[in-house]
Amino acid sequence: MGMIGGGPGAFIGPIHRIAAELDREIELVAGVFSSDSGRSRQAAVDYAIDPERGYPDLATMFSAERQRDDGMDFVCVVTPNHNHLPSVRAALEAGYPVISDKPMTATLAEAKELAATVGQAGRPYALTFTYTGYPLVREMRERIAAGALGGLRKVVVEYPQGWLAGEAEGKQAEWRVDPARAGAGGCIGDIGVHAFNLAEFVTGQRVSQVFPDLAAVVPGRKLDDDCTVLLRFENGMRGVLLASQIEVGELNGLRIRVYGESGGMVWHQETPNTVTWHKIDGKTELLRAGDSSLGPAATSVTRTPGGHPEGYLEAFANLYRDFAALLRGQDAPMLPGLDEGMRSMLFIDTSVSANAEQAGWTQLPRQERISA
Amino acid sequence: MGMIGGGPGAFIGPIHRIAAELDREIELVAGVFSSDSGRSRQAAVDYAIDPERGYPDLATMFSAERQRDDGMDFVCVVTPNHNHLPSVRAALEAGYPVISDKPMTATLAEAKELAATVGQAGRPYALTFTYTGYPLVREMRERIAAGALGGLRKVVVEYPQGWLAGEAEGKQAEWRVDPARAGAGGCIGDIGVHAFNLAEFVTGQRVSQVFPDLAAVVPGRKLDDDCTVLLRFENGMRGVLLASQIEVGELNGLRIRVYGESGGMVWHQETPNTVTWHKIDGKTELLRAGDSSLGPAATSVTRTPGGHPEGYLEAFANLYRDFAALLRGQDAPMLPGLDEGMRSMLFIDTSVSANAEQAGWTQLPRQERISA
Amino acid sequence: MGMIGGGPGAFIGPIHRIAAELDREIELVAGVFSSDSGRSRQAAVDYAIDPERGYPDLATMFSAERQRDDGMDFVCVVTPNHNHLPSVRAALEAGYPVISDKPMTATLAEAKELAATVGQAGRPYALTFTYTGYPLVREMRERIAAGALGGLRKVVVEYPQGWLAGEAEGKQAEWRVDPARAGAGGCIGDIGVHAFNLAEFVTGQRVSQVFPDLAAVVPGRKLDDDCTVLLRFENGMRGVLLASQIEVGELNGLRIRVYGESGGMVWHQETPNTVTWHKIDGKTELLRAGDSSLGPAATSVTRTPGGHPEGYLEAFANLYRDFAALLRGQDAPMLPGLDEGMRSMLFIDTSVSANAEQAGWTQLPRQERISA
Amino acid sequence: MGMIGGGPGAFIGPIHRIAAELDREIELVAGVFSSDSGRSRQAAVDYAIDPERGYPDLATMFSAERQRDDGMDFVCVVTPNHNHLPSVRAALEAGYPVISDKPMTATLAEAKELAATVGQAGRPYALTFTYTGYPLVREMRERIAAGALGGLRKVVVEYPQGWLAGEAEGKQAEWRVDPARAGAGGCIGDIGVHAFNLAEFVTGQRVSQVFPDLAAVVPGRKLDDDCTVLLRFENGMRGVLLASQIEVGELNGLRIRVYGESGGMVWHQETPNTVTWHKIDGKTELLRAGDSSLGPAATSVTRTPGGHPEGYLEAFANLYRDFAALLRGQDAPMLPGLDEGMRSMLFIDTSVSANAEQAGWTQLPRQERISA
Repeated sequence: MGMIGGGPGAFIGPIHRIAAELDREIELVAGVFSSDSGRSRQAAVDYAIDPERGYPDLATMFSAERQRDDGMDFVCVVTPNHNHLPSVRAALEAGYPVISDKPMTATLAEAKELAATVGQAGRPYALTFTYTGYPLVREMRERIAAGALGGLRKVVVEYPQGWLAGEAEGKQAEWRVDPARAGAGGCIGDIGVHAFNLAEFVTGQRVSQVFPDLAAVVPGRKLDDDCTVLLRFENGMRGVLLASQIEVGELNGLRIRVYGESGGMVWHQETPNTVTWHKIDGKTELLRAGDSSLGPAATSVTRTPGGHPEGYLEAFANLYRDFAALLRGQDAPMLPGLDEGMRSMLFIDTSVSANAEQAGWTQLPRQERISA
Repeated sequence: MGMIGGGPGAFIGPIHRIAAELDREIELVAGVFSSDSGRSRQAAVDYAIDPERGYPDLATMFSAERQRDDGMDFVCVVTPNHNHLPSVRAALEAGYPVISDKPMTATLAEAKELAATVGQAGRPYALTFTYTGYPLVREMRERIAAGALGGLRKVVVEYPQGWLAGEAEGKQAEWRVDPARAGAGGCIGDIGVHAFNLAEFVTGQRVSQVFPDLAAVVPGRKLDDDCTVLLRFENGMRGVLLASQIEVGELNGLRIRVYGESGGMVWHQETPNTVTWHKIDGKTELLRAGDSSLGPAATSVTRTPGGHPEGYLEAFANLYRDFAALLRGQDAPMLPGLDEGMRSMLFIDTSVSANAEQAGWTQLPRQERISA
Repeated sequence: MGMIGGGPGAFIGPIHRIAAELDREIELVAGVFSSDSGRSRQAAVDYAIDPERGYPDLATMFSAERQRDDGMDFVCVVTPNHNHLPSVRAALEAGYPVISDKPMTATLAEAKELAATVGQAGRPYALTFTYTGYPLVREMRERIAAGALGGLRKVVVEYPQGWLAGEAEGKQAEWRVDPARAGAGGCIGDIGVHAFNLAEFVTGQRVSQVFPDLAAVVPGRKLDDDCTVLLRFENGMRGVLLASQIEVGELNGLRIRVYGESGGMVWHQETPNTVTWHKIDGKTELLRAGDSSLGPAATSVTRTPGGHPEGYLEAFANLYRDFAALLRGQDAPMLPGLDEGMRSMLFIDTSVSANAEQAGWTQLPRQERISA
Repeated sequence: MGMIGGGPGAFIGPIHRIAAELDREIELVAGVFSSDSGRSRQAAVDYAIDPERGYPDLATMFSAERQRDDGMDFVCVVTPNHNHLPSVRAALEAGYPVISDKPMTATLAEAKELAATVGQAGRPYALTFTYTGYPLVREMRERIAAGALGGLRKVVVEYPQGWLAGEAEGKQAEWRVDPARAGAGGCIGDIGVHAFNLAEFVTGQRVSQVFPDLAAVVPGRKLDDDCTVLLRFENGMRGVLLASQIEVGELNGLRIRVYGESGGMVWHQETPNTVTWHKIDGKTELLRAGDSSLGPAATSVTRTPGGHPEGYLEAFANLYRDFAALLRGQDAPMLPGLDEGMRSMLFIDTSVSANAEQAGWTQLPRQERISA
């Protein structure tokens, strides 16, 4: 695997490295970790790979790696959002499969360009919507699809954080509040999009309409840092999406509650190994990672016995495991890709626009389901 | 105390009886428990009071009680919503102070009539917004007022229930889904209004604008059973209110989260003796009922040592304790009354209307603060 | 009801008053609240009863109340432990049924005296082992008796508190650390005995052997303030009992875990409305107060709908409800009485003695089951 | 790194592999994964290493690896207990540093032999007492050492599991209940020893006396599957250790509570990213992974921002990170080694013997602190 982005000070680069390598099917061997050649080389040292393979630019990397017997087989893209399109396109055009951090691109227009590129390239393309990798999230999706809740009526998905409640300082914060690098969405593009994706992933339903309420709460901020979006789904299901980065003390509190005619299910990312399942007959069951009652969707991505908590890195690794399967020509039906990427860009773009124009309830453009 | 409503099969009548008598300052001695004279008398027996004082109608009760040396001193009203106005008005006009179940009335027009009546009567009038009676809710309000969170930015208040997810059966359910008895609001009038009141109570801020999203989810239902209302407050604070009665498995999950520039606080009604307080410096403190660090707002309404859980009935009793103080001529600054009642009716009425008319963001009519 | 003890500054007197009156079957009308006649009269005022009925001594109370048409029907005893025997005996000999705070007496010798007195008096006698009054504790007992866990193997019961970690100050603390008033047991007699009773109540099994490890941890203290007791039951079940009053920050953390061949159940007093039930097939069910799946043992002592938390006072009130039933000649099979009282005194006495003598594993004297 | 043990069907081998490689300082390159040469080779394939380096026996591995430029630098031992001594000794004598799974050996006699060998070999030797690798456990140790709780008085450490409540089936279960492979301790050697180690690690105090209560609860079992051990520490602190493998539904519920004169702290392995800290002044603070208020002991072994849960694998990886530092000649003061290994063997041996002989309170042989 070669990495684009993830240089000194990056949070998500080392996360991708650990996740990719966890199951020993993938190894980080090269990268353009920074647009500064010195820093790129230094990052290679930090990652404990050959400094020569910390390249100064994409063209050099593609050309050098192609000539090696042990050259990289695919690329992961972990740059700020505005570099997603050029990085992914270059890699695809150079013939490399790509796994990219979310969101797909900085803008919807870019996403459409990228979708076209992906279509032409005919190479695997996946997006790391990390939270779909949790075993219990997958169990929830499977049970809901099998009718555990009856006809679906309501979803509430929340993503509270507090780390941008003050001034946005540090490398992680700065680009996220800068429209030139983050794109049109702030909080909604950074974490709201995870919540959106999770809601569609878990329920198997698609959002058809949104009513957004986005604002920049911290004085002087240019992008939204606090969002609520009312949702309607194609099946008539109602929904609410809450995302915020100014809720002091909240860490990474993504949670989802889904209700149907005959049951309800609740999952919380900070205690990810449990789902609470309420049934219309007044009983409540706890589903726990490692329980013998869980199905293959969960057990096949669980590495430890019950009670030995797996967390964020393992969930992330499950996406890479899926991607490795894809590269081997196998199916990876749970792995987010172009379809989920386009959905999420439509969501960000429509929400930001409708909010700016005070357009009220707004249709999410229909999209044919794109197979991986 | 005399009771209006609360006859056989009622849930809230016995609750009021227990709450009123818990501190032994008040005793239930009479009532018109039902419009059916036999059932009213039977209810008196069930409540263990003199059957003679289970009256057939209001006029008889007022006249009989007035002639007794040990006649009742005030009235509590626990009827379905559409009987709040006539019951409260009759009692006030007969010279009795009144403590009434929420909401104030079935409609805003009735509320205005009632407000005028209260003004003329010059008798104490209070409303049992129960959740304001919890010690930790009062502690939260006091700490926020004292600046514990800095300038307020965001409130999320949720009230999930699931008991109306199926057919509405039983005495409790039936009137709540009938516009003739419940008024124009279903879920929003039954529990949304508690959430609204709690948000204003805890933050000390007033809602200025609402964007409602109400619907009747269960087929054939005439009133809303699932609500989301986006909020703006006069100080610029943003808010979201979620209330639902079709979320299977949710019992009485009222919770509130408030965030300011320098902190956040979280309280959950189902574990009511704890508040989590996050601080901008990365520390988190648990405030627990009975802790020596709590202030008088909490400790003065706590009856047991820490760890001996108090709950719903004790919170309810705290409102009656306040009302007893009011009757003795003392202050009861935490006790909801006319002001909170009018606020809540404006909220219900505006939300229901704006939802029906798809009016978008709608101003909540300004209201002068009414002192008790 | 007349009260013995519970004067100014007492914690448990007002608790008994509220609990007794909660269901309106019982009313506190008289008492010898203090051995000081002025304080006894003052307490009557505080309790809002006729000051004349705040008597200076037992003989006066019995004689005066007997002459009244509305005289008290029974007595509750809430004194420090060393006054249990004389108070209960006097009341029984005066013909009054008695409900007493635990432990039964200060010493085993006294308990035997009292047992003889109860036997001769032929009047109802009950003990307020409060925690047996919780609906979910009763549900747990019923389900275990019905075989929900299969043959029982293990019980762990813990009762951590921290309020005596420092100097024992205040009326509540002082007598509890004084052998002359508390008896031979400190922590073990104050809270260990609750844990012991709960273990026998929930499992339906009797302890046959104990290995105690008791100590006074706070320098200068004469009675134990930290206890562990290893247990064996007559059916071969193993057990551990932990009780402490020096665990800083612990409030009233009574909890019990019971395991059998085919399941396990867990209950925690500070969140008393839930039981977690693990099954051997890898499933876990939550039993929640108010759920329609609960049986009559729980639902008959539940006053509020699910999610409206009941707590300590309501559990306490359930014991008085049972006692009222007993007075009416009905059965109250869940109400602790002479049998449980003797069991608990045998436990305290044996544990304290065996600990002092370093006697190792020690048989708990067998006791015929005493019917109420 | 070369591995001894961890062949097909093993649980702990892949865990070690992931943990060792997580930070990319270590790579699994060779192993004697099974005493069956075919299975050893197959395991190499499963681990995605060169099949040639899946050796049939230790001597072959040592000799072959020594001749390679890229030969392994150290060995990890993950066999059943009875093979720890021969495996570790052979590796040390061949000049390789060793990191071994716990317990040190199957018997105390073996442990003494091993200690002598380690002393002579002069190579790094470490033991994977995994739970000492959690960031919050290290934070707790540091704060306690710095006086956060005042003088220590009491520790309760519990390790409930339920997976051996039925017949012991499967590769994991079988050897653990076989004295020939597990050694003299069953549950106490498998998990009790983790609890013991954690108690000494967190408090910084040493156990001086034990009173064990061990039994085989499941019929026909030869080794203990349920243990309670009363503890005394050299500083006078009291303690209780509970470990069980027959508590149905318990997964891996290791938890520890420590109390001192001025505070208490609680940690639970299944929610490992939080510590609750109670203070004598009535305040309670939550310490959460990622909070800026944590010290270097925690933050230096945390890979993700707060709220992105790390778990068991990351804790395990922290031990390998320490071991890598040791190999580089740096200090690793938190890494368990010979000293902790001897302590734990003394604990198992003394507990099992004293239990068998019904010896009552028994001195743990004093041991000089062994530096790494």
